[in-house]
Amino acid sequence: MSTKSEIIEFLHREFPQNTCLVEQVGNRSARIVQHISSDHLRPGQTVSGPVLMTVADVGIYIAILGTIGIVPLAVTTSLTINFLRKASADRPIVGECNLIKVGRTLIVGEAALYSRGDADMVAHAVATYSIPPQSRN
Amino acid sequence: MSTKSEIIEFLHREFPQNTCLVEQVGNRSARIVQHISSDHLRPGQTVSGPVLMTVADVGIYIAILGTIGIVPLAVTTSLTINFLRKASADRPIVGECNLIKVGRTLIVGEAALYSRGDADMVAHAVATYSIPPQSRN
Amino acid sequence: MSTKSEIIEFLHREFPQNTCLVEQVGNRSARIVQHISSDHLRPGQTVSGPVLMTVADVGIYIAILGTIGIVPLAVTTSLTINFLRKASADRPIVGECNLIKVGRTLIVGEAALYSRGDADMVAHAVATYSIPPQSRN
Amino acid sequence: MSTKSEIIEFLHREFPQNTCLVEQVGNRSARIVQHISSDHLRPGQTVSGPVLMTVADVGIYIAILGTIGIVPLAVTTSLTINFLRKASADRPIVGECNLIKVGRTLIVGEAALYSRGDADMVAHAVATYSIPPQSRN
Repeated sequence: MSTKSEIIEFLHREFPQNTCLVEQVGNRSARIVQHISSDHLRPGQTVSGPVLMTVADVGIYIAILGTIGIVPLAVTTSLTINFLRKASADRPIVGECNLIKVGRTLIVGEAALYSRGDADMVAHAVATYSIPPQSRN
Repeated sequence: MSTKSEIIEFLHREFPQNTCLVEQVGNRSARIVQHISSDHLRPGQTVSGPVLMTVADVGIYIAILGTIGIVPLAVTTSLTINFLRKASADRPIVGECNLIKVGRTLIVGEAALYSRGDADMVAHAVATYSIPPQSRN
Repeated sequence: MSTKSEIIEFLHREFPQNTCLVEQVGNRSARIVQHISSDHLRPGQTVSGPVLMTVADVGIYIAILGTIGIVPLAVTTSLTINFLRKASADRPIVGECNLIKVGRTLIVGEAALYSRGDADMVAHAVATYSIPPQSRN
Repeated sequence: MSTKSEIIEFLHREFPQNTCLVEQVGNRSARIVQHISSDHLRPGQTVSGPVLMTVADVGIYIAILGTIGIVPLAVTTSLTINFLRKASADRPIVGECNLIKVGRTLIVGEAALYSRGDADMVAHAVATYSIPPQSRN
């Protein structure tokens, strides 16, 4: 397992392009936040699909790091996202992520995305990650 | 239907953050290209998942624009991507996109992504788009 | 909204091949049970994938009937399932189903499947249903 | 690799409940057929979703058997299906299946389903299979 500050330091070093903030990391879970600027919007004044997919992918990856330790070479093998409602253009996106299977070589997690302060889910994702042999701490 | 140059002009105006290039647009198909820089990579020197998801989503959307005309408010309702192989860090990603259903309110498309010059698919995506009523040209 | 007994009667009449039992129907949720016989197994003495997909699809459909009333022509437009663990060959499969979006024309639901009495999820599905216009009671 | 008759014999022995017919097995591909009776229909006189999911899952599995040999313990780890059009109630379903990745531990395949004689796809599926170590022939 890794602490929140170890994960933040790792992301900063290895994923410098990441703009998601880590709010909470627990065993098999994580909550992350993406602040929204005009760069993240698309016509209709809503958050673009790729921004939401990125939050889901990064959030589940962080839940994995918090559960099995820093595994830089864990890779996403599949991701399914359903876009449910227009996300607010002027609120951060919050991703609540949980792992539903932690296997030796495959991990499956789920992300529920919200506009901060709104109870209705804006998108839901499920993703699978492959863990390379011998990479666990 | 829209021509390639109408689509390029529309993307430039409405999606200024888009960095994919439109190579070809046909009836029910499109080919797009994303040049890769260090910003698009992740540890292990491979193209990051969110970059590949973005190419798939944008490419299928462009195939829709080429098929039913410029519909700015068409929205992605779901996307499933399978990551198959490490994409090359030093070659552009090419997305070959085809629509497999063009309904009145729902369109389903498929994207096969490659590192340019390599015959093996690096990722495969299927996505569904909702077309708002009265939006067709 | 429909009651549990209205739904059971409807399934019996319209889906005579259905073998899932309805245990509970609430607003936006349902719990269903599939008893397992040798017909449902595959090599390795586990419940076959198609059986689990059927439970997920039927269970989310029942949650829809319980929420918006009997809509025989509601159709599944997509379903994604992740198989997480071997389901027990000698226990019923329980499907806990929840709707995560109830729109006017599209409904999205989630199913968590378990071997009865075991806390670990054996499969997780997300599915989308299209509701034909004028079909709501 | 296995021949078509070895695969038919294996399915008959290990999956006696299977009703799909194997029409063709090639390297990385298979074509299978499911005859349709009233048991396979749902209200609206169309082939039910679980029947189509079963054809997709079985067809991709057969393409795997034809490519890497008889591996009884290969298991589906995920499947995504999009239902595109009503399948005809009075024609067989044909599944055209192709593998898009054949890895050491994970195989990904795609299935295009048709009502026989009709050029429009009725459903499209992508599925992932896990191959247990040492199981390859």
